[in-house]
Amino acid sequence: MRDAYVVGAGQSAFGSFPDESYRSLFRTAVEAAVESVPNGFALADVEEAYLGTLGVGGRQLGLPGPACTEHVGLDGTPVTRVENACAASGYALRQAVMAVRAGMADVALAGGVEVMTDLSDEAVRYWLGVSGETEWERLSGTTFAGVYAQMASAHMREYGTTAEQLSAVAVKNHDNAAHNPKAHLDFTCTLEEATEAPAVAEPLTLYHCCPTTDGAAAALVVSEDVVEEYTDAPVRVAGVGAAADRVGLFQRDTYTAIPASRRAAETAYDAAGLDPAALDFAEVHDCFAVAELLAYEDLGFCDRGAAGDYVESGATRPEGDLPVNTSGGLKAKGHPIGATGAGQVVEAYDQLTGRAGDRQLDDPVVGLTHNVGGSGGAAVVHVLERADRREGPA
Amino acid sequence: MRDAYVVGAGQSAFGSFPDESYRSLFRTAVEAAVESVPNGFALADVEEAYLGTLGVGGRQLGLPGPACTEHVGLDGTPVTRVENACAASGYALRQAVMAVRAGMADVALAGGVEVMTDLSDEAVRYWLGVSGETEWERLSGTTFAGVYAQMASAHMREYGTTAEQLSAVAVKNHDNAAHNPKAHLDFTCTLEEATEAPAVAEPLTLYHCCPTTDGAAAALVVSEDVVEEYTDAPVRVAGVGAAADRVGLFQRDTYTAIPASRRAAETAYDAAGLDPAALDFAEVHDCFAVAELLAYEDLGFCDRGAAGDYVESGATRPEGDLPVNTSGGLKAKGHPIGATGAGQVVEAYDQLTGRAGDRQLDDPVVGLTHNVGGSGGAAVVHVLERADRREGPA
Repeated sequence: MRDAYVVGAGQSAFGSFPDESYRSLFRTAVEAAVESVPNGFALADVEEAYLGTLGVGGRQLGLPGPACTEHVGLDGTPVTRVENACAASGYALRQAVMAVRAGMADVALAGGVEVMTDLSDEAVRYWLGVSGETEWERLSGTTFAGVYAQMASAHMREYGTTAEQLSAVAVKNHDNAAHNPKAHLDFTCTLEEATEAPAVAEPLTLYHCCPTTDGAAAALVVSEDVVEEYTDAPVRVAGVGAAADRVGLFQRDTYTAIPASRRAAETAYDAAGLDPAALDFAEVHDCFAVAELLAYEDLGFCDRGAAGDYVESGATRPEGDLPVNTSGGLKAKGHPIGATGAGQVVEAYDQLTGRAGDRQLDDPVVGLTHNVGGSGGAAVVHVLERADRREGPA
Repeated sequence: MRDAYVVGAGQSAFGSFPDESYRSLFRTAVEAAVESVPNGFALADVEEAYLGTLGVGGRQLGLPGPACTEHVGLDGTPVTRVENACAASGYALRQAVMAVRAGMADVALAGGVEVMTDLSDEAVRYWLGVSGETEWERLSGTTFAGVYAQMASAHMREYGTTAEQLSAVAVKNHDNAAHNPKAHLDFTCTLEEATEAPAVAEPLTLYHCCPTTDGAAAALVVSEDVVEEYTDAPVRVAGVGAAADRVGLFQRDTYTAIPASRRAAETAYDAAGLDPAALDFAEVHDCFAVAELLAYEDLGFCDRGAAGDYVESGATRPEGDLPVNTSGGLKAKGHPIGATGAGQVVEAYDQLTGRAGDRQLDDPVVGLTHNVGGSGGAAVVHVLERADRREGPA
């Protein structure tokens, strides 16, 4: 099995762009990814591509892969659309890694895109709802805010988690987004504002929920055989893990964890030969504030039930032991469904290669990305490391 | 790179099944695949799964992967939805092969499903249309029958191909389907009936078009390290090829070929180390009769422009030099979009392992499957061989 490396990653701004199309956003992301490769990159080198998208709005529901890649001049390159709801482009990255490891490509592109803000509220609700369990969740009127609200309620009841602890996630991620020029909600908020905002689905307030966002992101993945052509700052895909679960929350054994996240993380840690203590930062799937708390526990950052105290301790702020969502996260950077997973990789790549601007952490070596589909029907975790700077045997 | 083998494949019947769901059809296909493994197979061995579906009807547009795999008890196994329109499960098989070759799974499942017959004619037209180029084909009212009719007209004008030659494809594939208990249109037709049937889109008549079909299919793919546990009749994935192209027919250089098919086939032949003369049979993408003629030329079965004469010669009938679509093809076996690619693999597996009943060819060793997305925006080709019976070096 050959090693795979991320040698470039880029994204469009995340936000509301009435003058853009899904293809123009994708092109912007790919151009940014190419631009980010230290030693230069010719797009024609791409031998294999994956596109993550839910296809919100039904713009090009079939064949969005070639529709996007033709727009950047990759007319003939094999491209496959990958979908696992909000984890679509996390899985696209995993497929690109697989293509490289399989020896079926030396250079692969993994991207994602979604355009959402030109739709009516009703249409957005429909298009998000299609990733819920159909018969007993979506068709009975349950939204994703409602599903995550049930998790939040259960976590509060079982572990004493408070509304202020949910708000602490929002405050941190808004603070981070305020330093990210690509973020959708690039303003700060206070604990009081977040807690006292109108409820979307109790106990989740407006500030506990991610926005509806347009955007695209892309990563360039190459094999160990060619990595030196592209970079002297190799970001190795040290570990990959994925897991599935029942699509409906009500079908699972627990409301206070996302088991697929835990299993995906275990696989990724095992493959990378490390545990969460080795991480210097993480980008986790915080579609709602409670999701970031669950991630802390599912990914082993803190004990089960301790996430509320953990966020309040400041451990996951940029100056803490394990900065989480320095990008602003889905919460404030934004959540263009199909672009989110690849967007997390952009932040990880930028942090690991010293490109994170005002958000730059102090020489991080190992980072993690965590992308969830639906309310946990799918999850995918990547451990990325600066191979040249990791201590101990390679 | 490890070799990958198909050790089992099965499908539901293709047809109209108002009492079935996409999940019950998927389960039937998976059970048939498991049943087909010579030395037995425990579904719990599956470490990785891919589901090809367009999601026709919008039943579970997000996360159909876990929605299907949970229904067969694979709740936790990583599963990824793969979509390239009508080539969805051809690409799902390719991803399963990649997972095995990458060393990320020893045992993988690739399946596909679609339910279409419970929709209105208008809804079917919409859901097929979403894989056309959106702005200039779909939204201007062009159907896929219309797009392929343009190819047929061009081929007739350029090469003198006749309506009777188009009908010869239909007659052959209906004859074959009449021997396939899983086929949707299991009746024969005459050359006259096919030629004189009402036009769907001139010059294509009703008999030149595939039906709207429900169905599911699945294949089990394992690594060389474990293949001997499952079978003494190993079907090796000798070659895989994929290619993309502009989504819209009008955007390409030719109306009389599908260039993505040609390039996918070249890649697959190169990987397998053989040329078309080595094939004992093929399942090709005959969504319309003209598509089978184009496939003959794109896949190198005959010279460019000679496909009409080739089919009239009988070469592709079961008793001919290169039997094509012994299953009945999309034309008569049926075309449940997401299930079609995996369904082709079922026929190939059955032929290579002597399970094809009344359609059984005389000891075939090498077969090909060819699956096209849209009008040629994507194509994928697999060369499958009985590794134990191929002459010359392995």
